[in-house]
Amino acid sequence: MSSRDIYSNLSPWDHRYSVREKEFSDLSRFFSEAAQINYQGRVELALVEELVERGICPPGAIGEIKKALDKLDPEEVYIEEEKTRHNIRALVNVLAREVSPDHRPFIHLSATSMDIVDTANALRFKAAHRELIDPLLRKVILLFCSLIRREKATLQIGRTHGQHAVPITFGFALAQYLDRLGRAAEESLHRSEQLCGKMAGAVGAYNASSMLVEDPLELEKGVLKRLGLKPAPISTQIVPPEYMLNYLHSVIVAFGVIADFADDMRHLQRSEIEEVGEFFAPEQVGSSTMPQKRNPINYEHIKSLWKTIQPRIQTVYMDQLSEHQRDLTNSASTRFYVDIPVGFFLALQRLKRVLEKFSADREAMFSNLKKGQDFILAEPLYIALAAEGYPDAHEVVRKLTLEAEEKGVGLHEILGEKKEIQAYLERMTPEQKNILGDPVQYTGLAEKKAEIICEYWEKRMEK
Amino acid sequence: MSSRDIYSNLSPWDHRYSVREKEFSDLSRFFSEAAQINYQGRVELALVEELVERGICPPGAIGEIKKALDKLDPEEVYIEEEKTRHNIRALVNVLAREVSPDHRPFIHLSATSMDIVDTANALRFKAAHRELIDPLLRKVILLFCSLIRREKATLQIGRTHGQHAVPITFGFALAQYLDRLGRAAEESLHRSEQLCGKMAGAVGAYNASSMLVEDPLELEKGVLKRLGLKPAPISTQIVPPEYMLNYLHSVIVAFGVIADFADDMRHLQRSEIEEVGEFFAPEQVGSSTMPQKRNPINYEHIKSLWKTIQPRIQTVYMDQLSEHQRDLTNSASTRFYVDIPVGFFLALQRLKRVLEKFSADREAMFSNLKKGQDFILAEPLYIALAAEGYPDAHEVVRKLTLEAEEKGVGLHEILGEKKEIQAYLERMTPEQKNILGDPVQYTGLAEKKAEIICEYWEKRMEK
Amino acid sequence: MSSRDIYSNLSPWDHRYSVREKEFSDLSRFFSEAAQINYQGRVELALVEELVERGICPPGAIGEIKKALDKLDPEEVYIEEEKTRHNIRALVNVLAREVSPDHRPFIHLSATSMDIVDTANALRFKAAHRELIDPLLRKVILLFCSLIRREKATLQIGRTHGQHAVPITFGFALAQYLDRLGRAAEESLHRSEQLCGKMAGAVGAYNASSMLVEDPLELEKGVLKRLGLKPAPISTQIVPPEYMLNYLHSVIVAFGVIADFADDMRHLQRSEIEEVGEFFAPEQVGSSTMPQKRNPINYEHIKSLWKTIQPRIQTVYMDQLSEHQRDLTNSASTRFYVDIPVGFFLALQRLKRVLEKFSADREAMFSNLKKGQDFILAEPLYIALAAEGYPDAHEVVRKLTLEAEEKGVGLHEILGEKKEIQAYLERMTPEQKNILGDPVQYTGLAEKKAEIICEYWEKRMEK
Amino acid sequence: MSSRDIYSNLSPWDHRYSVREKEFSDLSRFFSEAAQINYQGRVELALVEELVERGICPPGAIGEIKKALDKLDPEEVYIEEEKTRHNIRALVNVLAREVSPDHRPFIHLSATSMDIVDTANALRFKAAHRELIDPLLRKVILLFCSLIRREKATLQIGRTHGQHAVPITFGFALAQYLDRLGRAAEESLHRSEQLCGKMAGAVGAYNASSMLVEDPLELEKGVLKRLGLKPAPISTQIVPPEYMLNYLHSVIVAFGVIADFADDMRHLQRSEIEEVGEFFAPEQVGSSTMPQKRNPINYEHIKSLWKTIQPRIQTVYMDQLSEHQRDLTNSASTRFYVDIPVGFFLALQRLKRVLEKFSADREAMFSNLKKGQDFILAEPLYIALAAEGYPDAHEVVRKLTLEAEEKGVGLHEILGEKKEIQAYLERMTPEQKNILGDPVQYTGLAEKKAEIICEYWEKRMEK
Repeated sequence: MSSRDIYSNLSPWDHRYSVREKEFSDLSRFFSEAAQINYQGRVELALVEELVERGICPPGAIGEIKKALDKLDPEEVYIEEEKTRHNIRALVNVLAREVSPDHRPFIHLSATSMDIVDTANALRFKAAHRELIDPLLRKVILLFCSLIRREKATLQIGRTHGQHAVPITFGFALAQYLDRLGRAAEESLHRSEQLCGKMAGAVGAYNASSMLVEDPLELEKGVLKRLGLKPAPISTQIVPPEYMLNYLHSVIVAFGVIADFADDMRHLQRSEIEEVGEFFAPEQVGSSTMPQKRNPINYEHIKSLWKTIQPRIQTVYMDQLSEHQRDLTNSASTRFYVDIPVGFFLALQRLKRVLEKFSADREAMFSNLKKGQDFILAEPLYIALAAEGYPDAHEVVRKLTLEAEEKGVGLHEILGEKKEIQAYLERMTPEQKNILGDPVQYTGLAEKKAEIICEYWEKRMEK
Repeated sequence: MSSRDIYSNLSPWDHRYSVREKEFSDLSRFFSEAAQINYQGRVELALVEELVERGICPPGAIGEIKKALDKLDPEEVYIEEEKTRHNIRALVNVLAREVSPDHRPFIHLSATSMDIVDTANALRFKAAHRELIDPLLRKVILLFCSLIRREKATLQIGRTHGQHAVPITFGFALAQYLDRLGRAAEESLHRSEQLCGKMAGAVGAYNASSMLVEDPLELEKGVLKRLGLKPAPISTQIVPPEYMLNYLHSVIVAFGVIADFADDMRHLQRSEIEEVGEFFAPEQVGSSTMPQKRNPINYEHIKSLWKTIQPRIQTVYMDQLSEHQRDLTNSASTRFYVDIPVGFFLALQRLKRVLEKFSADREAMFSNLKKGQDFILAEPLYIALAAEGYPDAHEVVRKLTLEAEEKGVGLHEILGEKKEIQAYLERMTPEQKNILGDPVQYTGLAEKKAEIICEYWEKRMEK
Repeated sequence: MSSRDIYSNLSPWDHRYSVREKEFSDLSRFFSEAAQINYQGRVELALVEELVERGICPPGAIGEIKKALDKLDPEEVYIEEEKTRHNIRALVNVLAREVSPDHRPFIHLSATSMDIVDTANALRFKAAHRELIDPLLRKVILLFCSLIRREKATLQIGRTHGQHAVPITFGFALAQYLDRLGRAAEESLHRSEQLCGKMAGAVGAYNASSMLVEDPLELEKGVLKRLGLKPAPISTQIVPPEYMLNYLHSVIVAFGVIADFADDMRHLQRSEIEEVGEFFAPEQVGSSTMPQKRNPINYEHIKSLWKTIQPRIQTVYMDQLSEHQRDLTNSASTRFYVDIPVGFFLALQRLKRVLEKFSADREAMFSNLKKGQDFILAEPLYIALAAEGYPDAHEVVRKLTLEAEEKGVGLHEILGEKKEIQAYLERMTPEQKNILGDPVQYTGLAEKKAEIICEYWEKRMEK
Repeated sequence: MSSRDIYSNLSPWDHRYSVREKEFSDLSRFFSEAAQINYQGRVELALVEELVERGICPPGAIGEIKKALDKLDPEEVYIEEEKTRHNIRALVNVLAREVSPDHRPFIHLSATSMDIVDTANALRFKAAHRELIDPLLRKVILLFCSLIRREKATLQIGRTHGQHAVPITFGFALAQYLDRLGRAAEESLHRSEQLCGKMAGAVGAYNASSMLVEDPLELEKGVLKRLGLKPAPISTQIVPPEYMLNYLHSVIVAFGVIADFADDMRHLQRSEIEEVGEFFAPEQVGSSTMPQKRNPINYEHIKSLWKTIQPRIQTVYMDQLSEHQRDLTNSASTRFYVDIPVGFFLALQRLKRVLEKFSADREAMFSNLKKGQDFILAEPLYIALAAEGYPDAHEVVRKLTLEAEEKGVGLHEILGEKKEIQAYLERMTPEQKNILGDPVQYTGLAEKKAEIICEYWEKRMEK
């Protein structure tokens, strides 16, 4: 009845991604229209349950509504909405049909539509985060941990401005992303838990519920407690927009971290660098015309989804403005907020798949590092000289590198000729001499820091 | 086979709007995945036709491919893509199955995927604009014209800062939106026609086609001519992004105009103003809890869709950056460009429906105007005095209005007491005296300008 | 020497706002280039102090650098930068000039530029928030509190969709903004305190400091502790961008709240509503041509600044992506982050000035409320009937309002004729009858909630 | 008097860029507050001239106002504004002081502030584009032309996904940017010329001017003609926002093109690629701690400025919405529009400097190309085979590359063993054989296309 050819859908979510990504049905449980209506029904039920508890509604209503919810068909609600032109009133009418006439008046009693809509949204975004997004984030975090453990000592050249700088380890580079993603994950979980509901009526002042009960604040608290939510400290017709904005922002921040990682890995896969690889299925085609191509399509895809989704937070900022007790110019726009968790989840899922088969080419990393080793020497040399009190050490070393470049020889070779400097070099500690003799070892605390970060997150994830 | 419950879709396009808006199937003809694959097939056909014309491919291939296109099933392409992991190679393979082995090598020959993808996108966005969006824009423009003709002389107070300023006519106010929308419509049509394709191969240098033909530029031109398109002056793997960006920008600009109109009408429907009304069906529910409500939901909806869609242009700006001959971080993001014409079309469709039943409450407009008539007098008085050389006219009138306000009387009444001013007033022309005597007539060229604008667009639309 | 005509500046901050806003010099203490260089100097000093503490640098250096900082002239740094083309090296050279040759090598030793730049930015943004923005936020919050106390019982019609809904009190409406702003204020203070620094060297791995000390992590901690900061858990060349992003987001969120308030007040000043006024100086001109105008320019200005600044967060999201150990495409963009706190502070300052002279027109509020009182009745009537078990109460009342509208009479009058309903009405409690008899009293918990919110924030602000 | 220390300014425009960029004073001529007031004065003059021409104002006024404009001091206007709190009325008052009492009433007569403000903005943005931005764009375009002429035959590997694809020439790669920038330049010039003014009074209906003259449309046209502008077809209090939006969009588009180029060059400067260099002054410091560093700071800077400025277009889109005949929430925001041309101009100026010293390392390009030559063979081989009717040519070649990869030999070597393929190879044309024998020559029309594009733009620039 209410089915349609997938390929006639307009949004890539509902054609391409729905076919390609097996997690589509998970997302659908929270972010589809069926899910939305289902969650709204749950809120209506909680309200009736609370009215029963307070002796306003006869207890028989609960069972009837539960049954009505079990057979709730979104299409029926839509057909009813054609008459009412109001979606929540349509839902209420559809539920009412399954309820005995005596109980009907108590469905939705004292609530305004947005009590239902906003509360249901808080509920499903929170649930989706807890059940879907957070567990996936934890998996990705642990994948990072194990990769870091594996690569903590893998030598790699550090790069700034796309230029070789000084050495690090690849595990250290990964630890950066781990820590940023870990913090973003904890923040987004926290923000999802802060999402709150309301049961405060048409303008937020409990006008209607004050007609019904002595303490409308307790009524609101009671309804929301049944749903595992707290009421907003004060509402208008809608829950203050900042709770959802802060949650969606936190998702975008986490998205930015994985986009940064993807971009980084994309570049490490460049033909000239090739330090990182993506697994390639034997039948996979890289290009429709260049049969030899192996492309970083997963990382490209993650960055591309980020470019698609990140700017959508702008709509949420714009929705902070709502005139008086609400102006309803957020009616359509909030329906599209689902794009943000959906896009992030799909990108993260893809990242997980790539990380599970992640390969770092240690030889390539070492080879790239060695190529520039002579230049690496410049920094530790300057530091060591300056620490010994050598005047103008930075300037002197800068000129030495220029001289080496001009002569086409290594900085090391130039050094031998500079007696003045040699004198300082001899005074150095064995550790310092070691590094000046083999600058690829000049990795500071890279390995140690990788371990510290790793351990921290492994422990956090245990909880 | 490939169908799914509508209500399990994630995007509001594919559940709510697809059910509510009967124009969904029109949109689907251009913006669905089925449409995309179909248009890509057309480009593959045009390439083979051109190869036949140049004697490279045997003529029999054309009929075979046409047949293959007739029975092309998106699902089959998707199943094939599971093997190739490359969507265009999958399409080529699916087409090849229906083609005799001798002809197979010529499908897609010399093309790179993006030759097909970008060209197909230019083709379908252009077609959708010409067949769907532009005709609707023309209807809305003509609706504005007829409303303006009807309301050209309807007196209304002009408002700046939300404050009463000086009078206009309502037709004049509408003419503003007509002219802005008309220009935006012409611009977007022009930009849609500028969309261009390419058949220049993997890096845009015609490397492959140079292996096949003497003049690859002519080959490209020939293929695109069959599709009614021009080639980009120069391409990389992709068509330069500015053509699509400029087109989508032009759609967003038109969207901004109708959002501004909607916002304006929304405010004119305020309880305290009530100059404009939305038609309300007898069974329609305004609020699930306040049975008396009549809300400007259509205008709210248009503004809300604008807030949803407008920021998505940001992604298109970000996609201007693509490394070297292309970096593919636009692979997913360009798939979502359809959101922009889809959102605009749906908002415009809604506007059309509202305009068809548009009602302006002339009495309310006049009544609101009359309330402030005494203050309106200030400007024509100052102008008339200054024109007569009255020193410091602006300052004097400003103080008079303060005086009137303090005394709680009309500016008119104050005037009678000021002999000095009376002397000047007597020297005025009958027209000036007329207006000073009945300031609601102080509408300048409002009616005339409304007519001029109207006539201009009626003529443009005849073409 | 380094001075220039204000009016030749390009940014409105540096001409218009610098002249108009006496707080400009406060902002300049944190957000000017002189401030930036000054804060960078403080970081260099802290590093030397720590090197002294660890016995690496002779103690005499501290006094010399302090003196150098006292006479530090930004222009001198700029002149030096013309040679070095590197701003931090220029700063180091300028400081070095004032320091004895023996101590020179220890300035900046082991640091990379971004250790200084990022740490100085954390320092000055945090300081500006604590010393400037947070105190102002607290003042505005307390102003809201006292306004709410004053207006907590002032009757006003609640408005949704710009339409009269059901009554509230004006204090309740204000309490909404108080609570949202209060939470945004606490969040932004928290986020400013989370800003962190680094002293981890060129790629974040403590390569250089490992040449100097046994425990570079302690060195970093020590330097930052002197500045009241914590180190980022792990850095590249730069501090992870999320700390600053989250802080700036929190400022934008607070900005959104006051923009919403301003927009609301702007509409309440409409000629047809006039419930709220802006103080107007006797010599003030509202319009250059309409001498009678009194415009809500302050609220307009706040919203306009929000429109200017809010989208600038987009740059900060884009800056989350930085290749490998940093790509430096954030070098210029981070310099402009100051726009965000500057814009917010100026808007907030303006809000404070307006709130100090805020006037609510209680009579106008009551008069607007009374006009629609007959329609207000609809909701409490429906609720009361439904609570008594009246079947289809919502639908019945909806039809009654339509009937009343058609007959041009009040809903109240219609009621008298409906015997069936009368029977239910008689059963109601005195409180319910009260409200049905005088619907303007139908304000629910508006006053109480206003008080609760007020009390909460008064207490929070005491701390 | 009105001067201030540069380094206490808040905006980087007014400290850092004003010191570093010698073009600051050029920008100041159009985009400073002094410039804005000066241009507003010119509009006031044009109005008086027109009033004189129409016999409304005595001719002596013209000379007086010209004198007043010559000595117009922005500070005086600001001091006056402290009284009037209205900037245009302040300007009028300051001008009036220098004018004989008889002429005073005619200054600004019939105009509203926005007639002056919007017209002056159109005027100065248009002038800045014509005098500053367009000439610079033309220089950069010609620089691209000469670089392309120089490098048109320089072999380079084409890159997609950051992976080696098939060869191009470096001139061809540059030609892409030339053509995109050229078109963006022409578009932005066109858009600047479309900027229009108004002289239609407080609500756009010529209310005031209708009190003065018979044909207010002619009056408006006359005033604007004196300034080289056309009137908007219809206005409210303001010129329709789309003219400025389209202009600023066109600037952002051009900015996107140079940002893309900068990003590209940045990557070509990577240590592993090193195909492109930035000139480095002998005293220049690359890093404050790594003396050896040579960083692509100019390209980084251009991209960073793009990230700063591009999102600011969002404000302009938001300003499309203005209630009724204007709501003034664009008062502050439009003042910041200058950021867009200022940022673009400074980035473009930097690009010009870099291009003037641009060096392409032809050897490095060839060496990078050679490294992958064996893989390049795949595409021409597939094309040549397919053109000869070899079945499944793409799939066969794809498998050959996998085989070669596994065996660790060149694709070329594998080929020798495949007799079946050899038979096809022998049938090929000499040109085809040539390319298969030396795949680095597989550049298609790269050189030719570079020349065509170059020639086209050289000719366009002659005009």
